[in-house]
Amino acid sequence: MSRLKDTMAAEAQAVNDHLDSLMPTSGDPEDRVVEAMRYASLDGGKRLRPFLVLQSAGLFSVARTCALNVAAAIEMVHCYSLVHDDLPAMDNDDLRRGRPTTHRAYDEATAILAGDALLTKAFEVLALGGTHADPAVRSDLVLELALASGGRGMVGGQMIDLMAERGLLDGVQDVAAITRMHTMKTGRLISFSTIAGAILGKAPRPLRHALAAYAHDLGLAFQIADDLLDVEGSTATLGKTAGKDQAAGKSTFVSLLGLDRAREQARALSEQAVGHLDVFDEKADLLREVARFVVEREN
Amino acid sequence: MSRLKDTMAAEAQAVNDHLDSLMPTSGDPEDRVVEAMRYASLDGGKRLRPFLVLQSAGLFSVARTCALNVAAAIEMVHCYSLVHDDLPAMDNDDLRRGRPTTHRAYDEATAILAGDALLTKAFEVLALGGTHADPAVRSDLVLELALASGGRGMVGGQMIDLMAERGLLDGVQDVAAITRMHTMKTGRLISFSTIAGAILGKAPRPLRHALAAYAHDLGLAFQIADDLLDVEGSTATLGKTAGKDQAAGKSTFVSLLGLDRAREQARALSEQAVGHLDVFDEKADLLREVARFVVEREN
Repeated sequence: MSRLKDTMAAEAQAVNDHLDSLMPTSGDPEDRVVEAMRYASLDGGKRLRPFLVLQSAGLFSVARTCALNVAAAIEMVHCYSLVHDDLPAMDNDDLRRGRPTTHRAYDEATAILAGDALLTKAFEVLALGGTHADPAVRSDLVLELALASGGRGMVGGQMIDLMAERGLLDGVQDVAAITRMHTMKTGRLISFSTIAGAILGKAPRPLRHALAAYAHDLGLAFQIADDLLDVEGSTATLGKTAGKDQAAGKSTFVSLLGLDRAREQARALSEQAVGHLDVFDEKADLLREVARFVVEREN
Repeated sequence: MSRLKDTMAAEAQAVNDHLDSLMPTSGDPEDRVVEAMRYASLDGGKRLRPFLVLQSAGLFSVARTCALNVAAAIEMVHCYSLVHDDLPAMDNDDLRRGRPTTHRAYDEATAILAGDALLTKAFEVLALGGTHADPAVRSDLVLELALASGGRGMVGGQMIDLMAERGLLDGVQDVAAITRMHTMKTGRLISFSTIAGAILGKAPRPLRHALAAYAHDLGLAFQIADDLLDVEGSTATLGKTAGKDQAAGKSTFVSLLGLDRAREQARALSEQAVGHLDVFDEKADLLREVARFVVEREN
């Protein structure tokens, strides 16, 4: 798996450089919000979503800068969601990726605004001419990202998660309800990351659908692995607070299925995800490897 | 001015109905965030920005549903910014449009998420096929809205305003700096509202520029009038807390110019705005009237 790790590290660097170039400071008085955007999005994370964009774009020989723009846009959305989720009114977290959360490093108001600005910037980047010569593709990307991340997608999933945590909602206590919640909260954006390459490459429908099926299973496997890490990992390894779900008394795949069955389920989903890639040749090998990686990772 | 008031009221109702149709509840558990989006955006305000969209679209005979989609999208962005600005970590306001602010009616977490979802929904609506048959126009609208409302636009202006209020920033104490801040914080979105019709109608450059010049002066006149209302209005008439700027010791056009010169300046800008419309026939009459209205209004 060292080829995967090396490639992921190199691509994470490329995405970081690209994010850097998209958010320059200017010396103007509003730079504080741009600095907070940079703090929240640069130098951090595995960059799983950008990696999925770049790999899926590679299947269809999409131009590098187009794929990097989309990768950066999706990472901006992911990072904005972390900034807002970490706020005192939400998960109230002090630590993220081993560093103070954005509202700790700056202040709450700046963190709210930086999240807003990252989300807005993501749509700006997708609509730039450099993201694709065909405006129909750009418009399609905007629509898909909005659907994946809005009130019936990522934000809706976060709403359900918060309500369940605060006892405002019955019925997020079985596997079906937890699956739906996670499909919205994290799955939709992971799915969009994976099909973005197909959209950019104007891939035939069956190939786009194969990637969507892969992404669906991958996303769920990823979330179950996350629940396992919350129980089994340490704060030091994770770079974020461990044991949070249990402390909050939250229903998770682990609390519902138990450690062993949850781990089996994650592995089965990972293999199923790989199966959907049979229509692709060896160009999809790193996507196959990443599906195995997400369930074996340590953070 | 009764024709203007009647038309504004009728158009506000049409925009309200359109917003309503774009954000249906579904009975799903995430409905709470959709209800908060609806609370924050329905039944309120003068709908100045949507009115500007609809009037400018009327100059170029744009299809009604296209114009309504763009009007709704811009109003969603305006309303999300109010929801986030009202949060305790920001302006900490309890009252908006005569009703409890969204975080008071729901809770802080829901208000943050509802704001995020409204912003996301705005871009979804602009990217819908029904907003314009030509995807290049849709992509252009997305780009312009993102530029107007992001870290170098509305959000950046809000950042500057907050920093000035908290003494984190020197130099937002002269007319040039205040003008720049307001141009970012409110002017850019008002400008986008006005040129949106020209974008939808693929208007010739000179006409688009005339509208941009009109919107620039209108936006500034609007802001000076806002500062005047903060001093001269009552909380009951405004539907929001009066006297806030003075209480916060903020530099405003009124504190810098004095009441009389500020009022003169607003009127001069309003007349200058009307002058930019000379290239249009009587179809622009309501845009002419609205420029006068914004400086004479009582809330």
